[in-house]
Amino acid sequence: MVHTETISLNTKGFCDIINITPAVLSCVKQSSVADGLVVVFCPGSTGAITTIEYESGVLQDLKDALERIAPSDISYQHDRRWEDGNGFSHVRAALMKPGLTVPLVSGRLTLGTWQQIVFIDFDNRSRHREIVVQVVGE
Amino acid sequence: MVHTETISLNTKGFCDIINITPAVLSCVKQSSVADGLVVVFCPGSTGAITTIEYESGVLQDLKDALERIAPSDISYQHDRRWEDGNGFSHVRAALMKPGLTVPLVSGRLTLGTWQQIVFIDFDNRSRHREIVVQVVGE
Amino acid sequence: MVHTETISLNTKGFCDIINITPAVLSCVKQSSVADGLVVVFCPGSTGAITTIEYESGVLQDLKDALERIAPSDISYQHDRRWEDGNGFSHVRAALMKPGLTVPLVSGRLTLGTWQQIVFIDFDNRSRHREIVVQVVGE
Repeated sequence: MVHTETISLNTKGFCDIINITPAVLSCVKQSSVADGLVVVFCPGSTGAITTIEYESGVLQDLKDALERIAPSDISYQHDRRWEDGNGFSHVRAALMKPGLTVPLVSGRLTLGTWQQIVFIDFDNRSRHREIVVQVVGE
Repeated sequence: MVHTETISLNTKGFCDIINITPAVLSCVKQSSVADGLVVVFCPGSTGAITTIEYESGVLQDLKDALERIAPSDISYQHDRRWEDGNGFSHVRAALMKPGLTVPLVSGRLTLGTWQQIVFIDFDNRSRHREIVVQVVGE
Repeated sequence: MVHTETISLNTKGFCDIINITPAVLSCVKQSSVADGLVVVFCPGSTGAITTIEYESGVLQDLKDALERIAPSDISYQHDRRWEDGNGFSHVRAALMKPGLTVPLVSGRLTLGTWQQIVFIDFDNRSRHREIVVQVVGE
């Protein structure tokens, strides 16, 4: 059985980290799948999906780490060519990747107590996003 | 067909890298699935799953890289707020992500000769872990 | 339904980034699966799969970021022990991970307009690769 929905989001960009766990759980409920897996995927080249404890301190720590890995204030060839100004967004998204797969067991995602599924918008402007949630199982 | 098991581990924390390939293979055998995919997932916000050649030199090289990306000796807002001391663990886990999906073909994982599935415990203490292994297929 | 194929590639190594989206789409077509998921996986410890806008500027930007994260010109214990010279390749591959899962909806991958699936060969020499594409669904 395959069930697919999308989650609509409005983001602020600039490493906006949004907790989408409640929305993913709602898609799981709609699916009537009890055992299987849930794929969460961001269409687009400037976003990523991961998990984190959704606590403002560590969210800032993750942003600081990404600023070290792909700084927003250095020169990118993407920007010199296209003048988009979001070269750092593309690099961060390629490194962190657009999807995540989580097992579903007896109707529950196998997340840890404080572990939340988040969408990160790396773009350099506010964006509307449609995140894909797909439930595959029985 | 969906088959789920857990792998019990005791880790030392501090970037302890554990080869879980034999345990994953044992779950695959128990599943009686021949073709499909295997999802390996860490419940919790301070661990990750990836693959690597399980050789002590390159394991240390990976630890050194993570120390550059999210150093253990700088200040984290998570620690100032919660005094857990494991801000670096959370950041590393969010960057590397908690899961991995590997195709299963005719009863075999499609790993390369030296490629092993590993769990990395980024926490700042020894931990007991229950890693989820889910086999989906026919 | 499970359908598995491989994509044969000859790469130049040294962070060679190859757009494999057309080949993945061709596997999807062969599968006759309309709804489900597509797992793309690199057997081997020196390659990764991700998505990126396939534009030469941002491809170079990603290479530059990886050179900051795991420089090719520093000393690696893997190289001191095995004299392979590809310690940086192993570290980059472990950080970026060997696979990607993309939802398939009504016969279409849920990629964004400019988002392409790429294989990155981190090794320090040209390589022949067999990338696994597995389609699971109905």
